[in-house]
Amino acid sequence: MSTKWVYTFEEGKAEMRDLLGGKGANLAEMTNIGLPVPPGFTITTEACVTYLNAGETFPSGMWEEVVENMKALGKKMGRTFGDSQNPLLVSVRSGAKFSMPGMMDTILNLGLNDEAVETLAGEAGERFAWDSYRRLVQMFGKVVLDIDGLKFEHLIDQIKNAEGVKTDAEISVDGWKKMTAQFKDLIRKETDSEFPQDAWEQLEYAVAAVFKSWNGAPARNYRKATGIPDDLGTGVNIVTMVFGNVGEDSGTGVAFTRNPATGERLLYGEYLFNAQGEDVVSGARTPLQVGELKDKAPEIYQKMVENSAILEQHYRDMQDMEFTVEHGKLYMLQTRNGKRTAAAAVKIAVDMVNEGLISKEEAVARIDSFQIDQLLHPRFDPAALAGSVVLTKGLNASPGAAVGVVYFDADIAEAQTQKGEDVILVRPETTPDDVHGMLAAKGVLTQRGGATSHAAVVARQLGKPCVAGCEDISLDLENKQFSVDDMVVKEGDVLSLDGGTGRVYLGRIPTVAPSFDDQSDLQQILAWADDIRRLQVWANADDPEQATRARNYGAQGIGLCRTEHMFLGDRTEKFQAAILAERQGLHDEFLNVLDKVLLPLQRDDFHGIFRAMDGLPVIIRLLDPPLHEFLPSLEDLAAEVAAMQARGESNADTELLLETVRDMHEFNPMLGLRGCRLGITLPALNTMQVRAIFEAACDAAKEGIVVHPEVMIPLTSHVNEMKKIQPLLEEVAKNVMDEKGITIEYKFGTMIEIPRAALTAGEIAEVAQFFSFGTNDLTQMTYGISRDDAERKFLLRYADKEDLNILPNNPFQAIDQIGVGRLMKIAVTEGRATRPELEVGICGEHGGEPSSIDFCHRIGLNYVSCSPYRVPIARLAAAHAVLREKGLIS
Amino acid sequence: MSTKWVYTFEEGKAEMRDLLGGKGANLAEMTNIGLPVPPGFTITTEACVTYLNAGETFPSGMWEEVVENMKALGKKMGRTFGDSQNPLLVSVRSGAKFSMPGMMDTILNLGLNDEAVETLAGEAGERFAWDSYRRLVQMFGKVVLDIDGLKFEHLIDQIKNAEGVKTDAEISVDGWKKMTAQFKDLIRKETDSEFPQDAWEQLEYAVAAVFKSWNGAPARNYRKATGIPDDLGTGVNIVTMVFGNVGEDSGTGVAFTRNPATGERLLYGEYLFNAQGEDVVSGARTPLQVGELKDKAPEIYQKMVENSAILEQHYRDMQDMEFTVEHGKLYMLQTRNGKRTAAAAVKIAVDMVNEGLISKEEAVARIDSFQIDQLLHPRFDPAALAGSVVLTKGLNASPGAAVGVVYFDADIAEAQTQKGEDVILVRPETTPDDVHGMLAAKGVLTQRGGATSHAAVVARQLGKPCVAGCEDISLDLENKQFSVDDMVVKEGDVLSLDGGTGRVYLGRIPTVAPSFDDQSDLQQILAWADDIRRLQVWANADDPEQATRARNYGAQGIGLCRTEHMFLGDRTEKFQAAILAERQGLHDEFLNVLDKVLLPLQRDDFHGIFRAMDGLPVIIRLLDPPLHEFLPSLEDLAAEVAAMQARGESNADTELLLETVRDMHEFNPMLGLRGCRLGITLPALNTMQVRAIFEAACDAAKEGIVVHPEVMIPLTSHVNEMKKIQPLLEEVAKNVMDEKGITIEYKFGTMIEIPRAALTAGEIAEVAQFFSFGTNDLTQMTYGISRDDAERKFLLRYADKEDLNILPNNPFQAIDQIGVGRLMKIAVTEGRATRPELEVGICGEHGGEPSSIDFCHRIGLNYVSCSPYRVPIARLAAAHAVLREKGLIS
Repeated sequence: MSTKWVYTFEEGKAEMRDLLGGKGANLAEMTNIGLPVPPGFTITTEACVTYLNAGETFPSGMWEEVVENMKALGKKMGRTFGDSQNPLLVSVRSGAKFSMPGMMDTILNLGLNDEAVETLAGEAGERFAWDSYRRLVQMFGKVVLDIDGLKFEHLIDQIKNAEGVKTDAEISVDGWKKMTAQFKDLIRKETDSEFPQDAWEQLEYAVAAVFKSWNGAPARNYRKATGIPDDLGTGVNIVTMVFGNVGEDSGTGVAFTRNPATGERLLYGEYLFNAQGEDVVSGARTPLQVGELKDKAPEIYQKMVENSAILEQHYRDMQDMEFTVEHGKLYMLQTRNGKRTAAAAVKIAVDMVNEGLISKEEAVARIDSFQIDQLLHPRFDPAALAGSVVLTKGLNASPGAAVGVVYFDADIAEAQTQKGEDVILVRPETTPDDVHGMLAAKGVLTQRGGATSHAAVVARQLGKPCVAGCEDISLDLENKQFSVDDMVVKEGDVLSLDGGTGRVYLGRIPTVAPSFDDQSDLQQILAWADDIRRLQVWANADDPEQATRARNYGAQGIGLCRTEHMFLGDRTEKFQAAILAERQGLHDEFLNVLDKVLLPLQRDDFHGIFRAMDGLPVIIRLLDPPLHEFLPSLEDLAAEVAAMQARGESNADTELLLETVRDMHEFNPMLGLRGCRLGITLPALNTMQVRAIFEAACDAAKEGIVVHPEVMIPLTSHVNEMKKIQPLLEEVAKNVMDEKGITIEYKFGTMIEIPRAALTAGEIAEVAQFFSFGTNDLTQMTYGISRDDAERKFLLRYADKEDLNILPNNPFQAIDQIGVGRLMKIAVTEGRATRPELEVGICGEHGGEPSSIDFCHRIGLNYVSCSPYRVPIARLAAAHAVLREKGLIS
Repeated sequence: MSTKWVYTFEEGKAEMRDLLGGKGANLAEMTNIGLPVPPGFTITTEACVTYLNAGETFPSGMWEEVVENMKALGKKMGRTFGDSQNPLLVSVRSGAKFSMPGMMDTILNLGLNDEAVETLAGEAGERFAWDSYRRLVQMFGKVVLDIDGLKFEHLIDQIKNAEGVKTDAEISVDGWKKMTAQFKDLIRKETDSEFPQDAWEQLEYAVAAVFKSWNGAPARNYRKATGIPDDLGTGVNIVTMVFGNVGEDSGTGVAFTRNPATGERLLYGEYLFNAQGEDVVSGARTPLQVGELKDKAPEIYQKMVENSAILEQHYRDMQDMEFTVEHGKLYMLQTRNGKRTAAAAVKIAVDMVNEGLISKEEAVARIDSFQIDQLLHPRFDPAALAGSVVLTKGLNASPGAAVGVVYFDADIAEAQTQKGEDVILVRPETTPDDVHGMLAAKGVLTQRGGATSHAAVVARQLGKPCVAGCEDISLDLENKQFSVDDMVVKEGDVLSLDGGTGRVYLGRIPTVAPSFDDQSDLQQILAWADDIRRLQVWANADDPEQATRARNYGAQGIGLCRTEHMFLGDRTEKFQAAILAERQGLHDEFLNVLDKVLLPLQRDDFHGIFRAMDGLPVIIRLLDPPLHEFLPSLEDLAAEVAAMQARGESNADTELLLETVRDMHEFNPMLGLRGCRLGITLPALNTMQVRAIFEAACDAAKEGIVVHPEVMIPLTSHVNEMKKIQPLLEEVAKNVMDEKGITIEYKFGTMIEIPRAALTAGEIAEVAQFFSFGTNDLTQMTYGISRDDAERKFLLRYADKEDLNILPNNPFQAIDQIGVGRLMKIAVTEGRATRPELEVGICGEHGGEPSSIDFCHRIGLNYVSCSPYRVPIARLAAAHAVLREKGLIS
């Protein structure tokens, strides 16, 4: 049987998203559940892919099916496509599996030509007919023939000037007629060919243009930003035209079944009387709120409320609808699951569970881990905000606080971001061409457009703060500045945007962490996630304050307490002196600083952490970095001494320090004398730390705190290292417990952060009671990439799809599952074969990244440990891993 | 059945080495093939191990077996052990599975006491009897009671002074009597107990002392140096005494069936008339050459020649025999496979094949890879030697040229070596306590002792040049100096030793590589090895000269031609300028230097290599090191600029250079922007090199040279790197072949030197046509150890058994088979699964190390590639791998 390329709306259904695209599948679904949808049909995504792969040739048989369906459509409507006396008019719209708003092409009013426009004029009035025709010619020119859209806009501006009017709506019939002729001239001039008068030719070009728009730069950028695969293709929906611009009893709108910013259960959206759909989406005219229809068009409002309820019950999710009213009759043009802010997503999910619409598992599945991130994003410090002067105010289009330097061009915004600057992108309105700049920017400010404008929709999805439709500002792109009254803001100035309130502030306003405690819906979702997940979530915390925050966010333990900061700050000078003493063979002086100065300080640090984590495990890593990191840099010292000598001065201490630093210098400190190598060659460092840990733990235990200290030995590469140092340290622990007269439970274990440790985990587990994957270092060594050096020098280029495109991901962000992950699997399997009760976790930065958490779940880790702020994300991601395993999430 | 702890010589045989030790098994074997061996028996090594493990308690039943066998021995000899009127005298000698000359204890004349000595005096003369008795007391005091041997020697010196004589032989009967009494007094004073008069008590103590000597420091050091396991234990041989010191018709000697230094087929050794065995081995008296017996004792000589033939036929190897003549009757006291120099080993093996004694496989199996190393060791430059003044001359005890700084103490020699100094150890004679110093030294010079003295035997085995018995020198240990006539050599002076001629030179004489071409026996062995091995042997060579040498040594290809040196020397300045131009965005200038300056030079280099390797494959690695390695160091530049500024000067060029170097600086260059990362981010470097390679190859091919260039891309971590760069380079290759109008065979492949490359070898083999393991880097990354830093800072201590003892080996010398090796196995298996014909080799330094070569054979590599000098070793080691697989070698 040959492939079927075309499905009428009656033949399709919602489940056919892959084949029909989201829009087509939903139009079919709406048709079949009895909602008023203009008749039409869909050309499949498969046809698009086949077309693109075949060098832009329609698949065999497709066109015949289109023709047949067009004829059937005409019969149903009592009109004939291509018949100028009784023309059938259709729209041609893209529609891919995943929504890509505004990224691909749409053409309206196909079927009009120089003759048919006269017929339409007779039926619906001259002004409307010529406006419709000029729209077809304009869109065809821009979309199909790739003529710069600004050239059409320029002609419209000329007419407006000539007629002395300000808006499109005021242009005269003659104006539209003249303009249509000018548009056709423009097409002739630019392409050496005529605008096709044959409707079938128009259709053929339009379908091909939609197919091709899948591979256009805007669509590719959007897919890159959102992770949509490149090989899906788009469907093409051919729908009978209905007109919202045939009078004041007509109009067009977009609406959400609930508020996409807050989640409130209330019809929310925008409506324009006497307008076509593009007028709303483009943001060129500022529309009514849908709520206002309750008074201004109560029947339509009521009908939309009913349709909303039907669609939510049917789709079991919040819907984003497009609709048109033609002479008082409502048509549903599209429905899809609505995009929403993180806050709305959480509230809607919780509400829908309470409404009995979805299960708790579904609620958890619907929250994206990245959305949680947004909810925990910093906000402006209320104290600082109180004293700040508001520059201007626009629509609160996408929540969050953003501070950055103003740029007016997406390319420049992206370039500055790559140089490390925080950027605010300011545009009149945004188009798909601006998405890369939005992606790079911290926040977006637009002069025009509403809550469903391109800028607003895209910013919400990207989680970028956005203030839209800020009409008070006067933009001067040429001079790279805008003004509000007398105040001029230039490229390079700093702005602060509050996407939650729509307020724009001049200058830099400090931000604060959001309050987790106030977000009860989020906490509800996470509580449900906790019921689902198997993986525990621990946190990396180096001091009592961080530990307290981590616990508040739901951490079930401390997976990594780094101790190096305990040697810094006002302790640095003393530790430096100790290192120098040791290097000069003054071992007693060295020990004296360790025991008299550093031990009591560390003990206090640990005590505070044990108190914060009462009842929960705390993994403390022994000193890891090379000692020379605590000394001045070789370059600086060499320069200092050289300068001194050039001035004929000398300073024995500085020269000795230089000598020492030079002697301790390492070519590759990452692979040098650090971690347990330090402890093995200089055991006093480790014995002091273990004494501090156990003194603190015993003291805490005596105060009634339940302590579970776990001592982590870093950088093991050979089991014998553990065999050498661990007994020594256990003896210190036992001595302290004897002195204190109390016994506590404890573990000794190791980081798995060197490839060889993973490869020989079976041996290492003979000694280690727990493993913790240090995936930062493990990635550095497995990949042979020094993170500090490489990200700047080549790694970002490697991972950039538009540049070298060598790596699918930055392996320091998401675990490289086939390389590094393979070592992790070996270590888990072989470690547990030796010691079945082995506790295995991860404490690298990957521990808070969802795809890595999923991997950790699959290979059977006991826990992931991440920064306190990421604990909620990790709790959710761990639940997602279970749901994914059950097939409840893709 | 209870364990049998004792075997008579009639019960044992050669195959029972494990149980009886080498000496015991061979005494048994000689007994059973009819050679004249004094009756005796052996206590098993198992008894020793049981004794040591049981806290130094004889195993149950052992002593009873000893007593029973002693009685049987007495019956056979017509004497009774412990009967002073008719005493049976025995020796108690250690004898482990592997020979450890002089490392463990021996006690002679057991059974003598204050009464029995009188009986012996009646039978054999007073002088002999008292000499024998004082020997027993002395050895017993030293060996069993652990009294410092020098105290006994001191007493002997006193007697000599008192009697005004110079040698032991001149001491009077009264002298010996007095001395025996003094020895007993010394024992009483030192131990608060008497020398035991009960023979059985003597025996019990003696057996225990031999057992314990297995764990003495000298034995442990020796085992560490030679790799003998610690858990074997020693046998104890109890043998009826025969006396070589009962008159001028008696004597004792050691002899080899062939010359152990040259391999010449001729009885070789030393003999002392009227002496006991210890007198020969200790080197205290300078003995006759065995050859001299032909005139001086023709019957004994003839008998020894016959016995030699019997033993060689029986053991099918060169024998090292100990024998004693008592009143004209020859007794064989020991035989074992003789230690020999590398040159002798090779000659003997070849001769024995020609004599039909052994097979070619056996001949190959018998040559140790390390021996080949000795044969290819540098020798003194004959030109330099000609003009050098010989300081003195001793015995050519162990061949080879050594140059170093003189030290007189083994501990200091070791310490200085660890500091990186080349050391010559000078001693009066060596003892087991000196072995660690000999091991550390480049060469050994002794004042006393012959070709079979401790120094000579151990030096030969360790492959250290040794000049022994250099009696012209006067040693003054106290003042750390020696003199030859008027010339004084002090600690810290430099000597050159020629162990092959016995000549000693003052100062440093340059060395030259030995001539491989002249060593026909070695070439014969290697030719037989070639017939056996499956693994090919290639060489690492960076220029035509090295390639020529490699080919001469038998290399079958170039496995690694590094190209970085092609950017050095007089080319450095130009390349630096190119790098600076590129960093300042002057890409054309950069390209200009590459194409105009470097390309022609590289092309010439490659052409010479192709010519040298006509018909064989040549793998050329593209530029690997980071570019900043070609620039001055950051430290130096920073100091230079700081000094300049302090002087109020300035130099824009230097400051720009500093800026550039600082910008290019990497924290961990090992893991940085190098290898293919360099080629991918700056492709002109690689395209220039590939052009040079193919221009040279095409030109050579046109001259009739058969070329097989293989282009190696370094540092791949992800298959996409290969996918990015390889097509680009292949295009260059094709363009050159088009231009030159000739087509040549070639391959593109990659180093496997990053763990991730090994873990994803299956993917990489989709693109790469060959793999070459860069085990230096692979070890660095898998182990997380930076070689340059770590060896100095901790790795040598890690691998030192006497220090931290964490690693069994330095992993940069022998492949870490369980860690790094596991990755190699994965890469071979999964690479070949993708591409069955994949060529896989190794080009790291491990490629010339025998245990690593064996591993490479086992995991199925196609070739190993090593430095030209190591090619012969690798050829042999590869053959050994096959023989080991067949069970023909352990």
